[in-house]
Amino acid sequence: MDGHRISMLGTGLIADFYTQTLHGQRGRDQVSVVYSRSEERGSAFRERWSIPESTADLAAAVQHPDTDVVVVALPNFLHEEAVGLAAKASKAVLCTKPLGRTAEEAKRMLDVVEAAGVFGGYLEDLCYTPKTLKAIKAVGDGAIGDVTWVRSRETHPGPHSAWFWDGRLTGGGAIIDLGCHCIEIVRNFVGKGNRPVEVMCHTDTLVHPIADEDNAVALIRFESGAIGQFEVSWTFRGGMDLRDEVAGTHGTIWMNHFLRTGFEMFTAGGGGGYVAEKAETAAGWLFPVGDEVTELGYVDMFSDMFRAIDSGGAPQETFYDGYVVNAVMDACYRSAKSNRWESVDLDWRGGTTARISSTPERYEGLVVIKREILPDGRHKLILKDEATGDFTDRVVEG
Amino acid sequence: MDGHRISMLGTGLIADFYTQTLHGQRGRDQVSVVYSRSEERGSAFRERWSIPESTADLAAAVQHPDTDVVVVALPNFLHEEAVGLAAKASKAVLCTKPLGRTAEEAKRMLDVVEAAGVFGGYLEDLCYTPKTLKAIKAVGDGAIGDVTWVRSRETHPGPHSAWFWDGRLTGGGAIIDLGCHCIEIVRNFVGKGNRPVEVMCHTDTLVHPIADEDNAVALIRFESGAIGQFEVSWTFRGGMDLRDEVAGTHGTIWMNHFLRTGFEMFTAGGGGGYVAEKAETAAGWLFPVGDEVTELGYVDMFSDMFRAIDSGGAPQETFYDGYVVNAVMDACYRSAKSNRWESVDLDWRGGTTARISSTPERYEGLVVIKREILPDGRHKLILKDEATGDFTDRVVEG
Amino acid sequence: MDGHRISMLGTGLIADFYTQTLHGQRGRDQVSVVYSRSEERGSAFRERWSIPESTADLAAAVQHPDTDVVVVALPNFLHEEAVGLAAKASKAVLCTKPLGRTAEEAKRMLDVVEAAGVFGGYLEDLCYTPKTLKAIKAVGDGAIGDVTWVRSRETHPGPHSAWFWDGRLTGGGAIIDLGCHCIEIVRNFVGKGNRPVEVMCHTDTLVHPIADEDNAVALIRFESGAIGQFEVSWTFRGGMDLRDEVAGTHGTIWMNHFLRTGFEMFTAGGGGGYVAEKAETAAGWLFPVGDEVTELGYVDMFSDMFRAIDSGGAPQETFYDGYVVNAVMDACYRSAKSNRWESVDLDWRGGTTARISSTPERYEGLVVIKREILPDGRHKLILKDEATGDFTDRVVEG
Amino acid sequence: MDGHRISMLGTGLIADFYTQTLHGQRGRDQVSVVYSRSEERGSAFRERWSIPESTADLAAAVQHPDTDVVVVALPNFLHEEAVGLAAKASKAVLCTKPLGRTAEEAKRMLDVVEAAGVFGGYLEDLCYTPKTLKAIKAVGDGAIGDVTWVRSRETHPGPHSAWFWDGRLTGGGAIIDLGCHCIEIVRNFVGKGNRPVEVMCHTDTLVHPIADEDNAVALIRFESGAIGQFEVSWTFRGGMDLRDEVAGTHGTIWMNHFLRTGFEMFTAGGGGGYVAEKAETAAGWLFPVGDEVTELGYVDMFSDMFRAIDSGGAPQETFYDGYVVNAVMDACYRSAKSNRWESVDLDWRGGTTARISSTPERYEGLVVIKREILPDGRHKLILKDEATGDFTDRVVEG
Repeated sequence: MDGHRISMLGTGLIADFYTQTLHGQRGRDQVSVVYSRSEERGSAFRERWSIPESTADLAAAVQHPDTDVVVVALPNFLHEEAVGLAAKASKAVLCTKPLGRTAEEAKRMLDVVEAAGVFGGYLEDLCYTPKTLKAIKAVGDGAIGDVTWVRSRETHPGPHSAWFWDGRLTGGGAIIDLGCHCIEIVRNFVGKGNRPVEVMCHTDTLVHPIADEDNAVALIRFESGAIGQFEVSWTFRGGMDLRDEVAGTHGTIWMNHFLRTGFEMFTAGGGGGYVAEKAETAAGWLFPVGDEVTELGYVDMFSDMFRAIDSGGAPQETFYDGYVVNAVMDACYRSAKSNRWESVDLDWRGGTTARISSTPERYEGLVVIKREILPDGRHKLILKDEATGDFTDRVVEG
Repeated sequence: MDGHRISMLGTGLIADFYTQTLHGQRGRDQVSVVYSRSEERGSAFRERWSIPESTADLAAAVQHPDTDVVVVALPNFLHEEAVGLAAKASKAVLCTKPLGRTAEEAKRMLDVVEAAGVFGGYLEDLCYTPKTLKAIKAVGDGAIGDVTWVRSRETHPGPHSAWFWDGRLTGGGAIIDLGCHCIEIVRNFVGKGNRPVEVMCHTDTLVHPIADEDNAVALIRFESGAIGQFEVSWTFRGGMDLRDEVAGTHGTIWMNHFLRTGFEMFTAGGGGGYVAEKAETAAGWLFPVGDEVTELGYVDMFSDMFRAIDSGGAPQETFYDGYVVNAVMDACYRSAKSNRWESVDLDWRGGTTARISSTPERYEGLVVIKREILPDGRHKLILKDEATGDFTDRVVEG
Repeated sequence: MDGHRISMLGTGLIADFYTQTLHGQRGRDQVSVVYSRSEERGSAFRERWSIPESTADLAAAVQHPDTDVVVVALPNFLHEEAVGLAAKASKAVLCTKPLGRTAEEAKRMLDVVEAAGVFGGYLEDLCYTPKTLKAIKAVGDGAIGDVTWVRSRETHPGPHSAWFWDGRLTGGGAIIDLGCHCIEIVRNFVGKGNRPVEVMCHTDTLVHPIADEDNAVALIRFESGAIGQFEVSWTFRGGMDLRDEVAGTHGTIWMNHFLRTGFEMFTAGGGGGYVAEKAETAAGWLFPVGDEVTELGYVDMFSDMFRAIDSGGAPQETFYDGYVVNAVMDACYRSAKSNRWESVDLDWRGGTTARISSTPERYEGLVVIKREILPDGRHKLILKDEATGDFTDRVVEG
Repeated sequence: MDGHRISMLGTGLIADFYTQTLHGQRGRDQVSVVYSRSEERGSAFRERWSIPESTADLAAAVQHPDTDVVVVALPNFLHEEAVGLAAKASKAVLCTKPLGRTAEEAKRMLDVVEAAGVFGGYLEDLCYTPKTLKAIKAVGDGAIGDVTWVRSRETHPGPHSAWFWDGRLTGGGAIIDLGCHCIEIVRNFVGKGNRPVEVMCHTDTLVHPIADEDNAVALIRFESGAIGQFEVSWTFRGGMDLRDEVAGTHGTIWMNHFLRTGFEMFTAGGGGGYVAEKAETAAGWLFPVGDEVTELGYVDMFSDMFRAIDSGGAPQETFYDGYVVNAVMDACYRSAKSNRWESVDLDWRGGTTARISSTPERYEGLVVIKREILPDGRHKLILKDEATGDFTDRVVEG
């Protein structure tokens, strides 16, 4: 029944979401100290969330004697340093997405936690939304057959904080910010042991006067033949659009995590207040989300992390997963430049996955291409003669 | 940071939901003992949820030395006895819906907890769904103006347990089972201080060969002029339909809690497993809910209850609320028999609420009935001459 | 292949919709003359729709030598006169909804067309929406079993024309304007031969400073036991809300005709133009309808009317149907005053309809109340012992 | 008021849809003769649609003395011959999609109608759905600013007719069947004068044992920088999925043409009948479409074609458009083989289109990257210093 005591590094939007989750409902885990470069922001955060201490000393926060878990909620360029300190302090470390700015950086972070023998959890919340968890389980149970295609879309009008826009600090633009979510969502559906082989990516900067991409579309080819597809943008208008689609040989899954979740409100205006992350309007038709920290996966994510720490097992999302995601993003950036498919270079630990395949049904020596049920219960077969290559159809009893 | 230790009374579907909530995620509260009439069901429940003890002795469960909270998850006809025992044991008691089978019974339960000075929480989960909580707040903030009408609909193909069908044990049919939810949802939107004045209800038994109603529709007139409307049924086909609609003078809210929440799956079959409470099919288009204990309000409900216990305050849903709900249901049953509007008889503690009203806008001495914005930006006014009663329209600058 | 030549009476919004339908796509029917009290509005309408003639002489329009069909698109208080003139001229007459202001008036109109032997079509467009037509057919084919309940909802922020607000000219408020649609939609689903027996109605004037109701909810009890429910309002915020729900013993139908039809647009504003009938905003999330004259039923309505005229048969919606609708509305107004169920008084031509019923399944001498399929394929039965009234459950092989 | 008389070539599903449209509602146009290779199918079609004549002589059908319009509803490999005959007969010719099997073939067809001076209409129905027409108009009116990205998705479980599966007769697989729709939808949104520059396409054959692709995803880069994206599949499970999304600098459009159009039905089974094109189930949750010939665009398509013929103008979709679509598909097939972006080779008639661009707003010498409205009405600016490349944020009065 004992909970964990946490060093929270960072005081931005993501640190707020994390702490809201940890301190929300009836949780047994608590933030004991918060770090910010700025004393002022640290104090404000401390008061906002009733945290005992705040500090502007990163090492002190990590090494705080009361805490056993370090949560890294810092800008991307500070992840490696923070993870190194946590590893040195022999504490479990949970790092927000993306793990690194490049696969090389992520690999060093993976190595340092493995060398230190500390727990490394990758805080990829969108793989933990309740819908996603249930969908992953359904796919695992065979509900949609072999997965052939996954679309993950994450778009909004652009980040709230200045540092997000500076590729020198983040490692890129919309791909680094949003594509990392999509890639790991795709991996959960096609199977984590299904190697991402190569990537084709198109990027552009269409709206914002910045050096990095504000739009990107990519295809990821997996060893099984499954295709992952992501669409990320900082130019979407209408709020935050988080949707996933999974197609399989025997079924289909559609998930909408934000703008259409069964909660619709029209207001002539007035009576404002917070509507939802990255909402664009406060009047007209609005689409709030019931409980954002649950719906965005934070609750289940931390539960999984702490259970894994307590049980000595691995969480669903590990530093290794974060490293794979960075490797895919690296290939995306290379492809966007070369205009070709680029291979995903990584130290693969996942084994091999067989090609999607099925033994075709046969009917009187012919290959059954398709079987349709007619209104009268009979079946219509589309048949192929392998010798001639000719196609015919025939209606048979059902 | 200390949690509560709970005596769980009952081992049915609702006790499962409650315990799943309490033991789920990172909660600090735990069930210490479970009571069932049946030793066998008690043992199975104990093992299923890793509870230290089970017993077939109701009083022993209530008086268990390690627990400070009693949760009543028993069939309706056992609520009063259980609440009485908890009051006697001076423990906080949380009772599932409906509080009583009649307002008279509910009033006795209210009196007994008040006399004993113990905490009485009414476990009305559907007033705590994340969507509902956010919508109640939006309404309170004025986002839709004065509430004029609330529709609450709760229908499914019928309960899972045999005792639910026996009006002698429950107090009625679909109204007692489902209408209690709707009534309290409506009250939260029109305002808890808004007195339910009278009720018009139609019931029928259309499908199931039972003595009680399997369908009911009712209107509840509140002091402000707002109308509550509920539709309950044990004959709905397609799953469990939980929808609420709120209309106000300046806005509208639509909530879908179950069948359309942004999660859609088509499966050709195979790969079965649990889909959702009261789902009807395991193939074709399915509409799972991400996390049922969150989406159905259980998580926020228990958080509110325990926070209220800890702070010495009142929860959102009290025994008094449960009593009001019973009083409205009593009026529904009377109305269904008399075929008239029937007054809601109760000891009202809520004060008075003014009639919905607005001072009409005037234009050149005429009353403005409606103002429309034309595509060219001008305004079209519908005007009424109060002297003659004549209506005209006029287009004016915007 | 020959089309019809039409005398169009009226130049308001509904005459625009009718003429847009008749002159739209590749229709063979044409308006030859249009009548308006106002020469100016008549001329404008004539030019807008390329009609050969306009006139301010009602009789002349009706008796125009080139036309064989008279379409009455006038305010309610002018319907009777116009229909009388058409009957006298021995022309087919199609009258917009509601047929009369009261059942008495409607009955006189029915009598006059029957006495003259002319075709009388009731222009109830919302019974002809493509969705509604397909749903009526599905219900007729048994797709949802016996209909137990129909909800028809029609609400918007109030009419565009001044005369609509004047109960002296229309016969009432939101019920006369909108309830007429709902009632006839309900009748199409419960069966036109299913007699509306009695009505319970609540009305109020909550927002607009007028003498008639701007809100109403009503229940209609049919001979079979089916319940019709309508909700009409001139105070809805968010656009025009047209939704129907049909529940049956074996299925469910949900239709959304306007605000959620699979067309969603977010616009930051600018690039205005007509969005949809009774839309409230021109920015933010908008929900246009593809083709309003098709989606609102006008196309199929006129096709049915002209086919019926050509074939000498009856259309789906007749003057008799209009009369029944008026009789139900009369009962609604009486009920709203008496606060009781009021009988529907009319000359019923529809025969009798049996009570919804089913012979209960039996299992080992017990009545099967419900049969559920468990995840393992077995069936769970809820059983009732008719002798004792006791309920039990049992799990059996599927 | 005179209609057209049509030679219908073909008797398959598409000829049925066309004739249902022409003979539906109150149309003035009629099929006078139908051609089929098979006398039997020709006779059946003739009777089904009350057509005066049928013939197995292609030239005779085209040259029929009573007809002025030839509609080509034949398998792809017969288009060129039929179009040639129509041109020779100096009749207007309307050809189903795709125009040719390759751009080369399509170009010959374009040339032959232009040389003969006959009207050539491209029957691309999905560019004429009522939603699409209204959305194209909204985009043209500036409602969403500059279009940056269009997704068009068309997937289903595979065609009904045997010849569709034979790439020798069709020119390919899912791209030739479905991609042609998507490409032209995309063109209508990005602007027909916006040149498709290059294409990146991935294809695979994952489920059906055929030689051609049963899945494809492609990106099309237009001169303006806009990206078109299509997803086509013959392996989708759940019915026919037709969705389009358009993103612009100031707005967003989502259209669902088939599976979610505001018509939802649950049926326990029984009471079957035709549900919708390519539906997969007859029980459970079904999503019918109200009026398929309207919703799929056939009605507006033929209206546009005949109006253009009558007025001597050009229809929305011309043979030239069909040729452009073929050129894009050719590039897709080349790219699928080369695994690179491939240029779209065609005789471009559309002029040039400027790059999407905007002049960035400035604030005190800094570039405004983003402007957010805070709950208190103030604005938060993300600012970039062009000299240093540093980003900062600042809150200012709104």
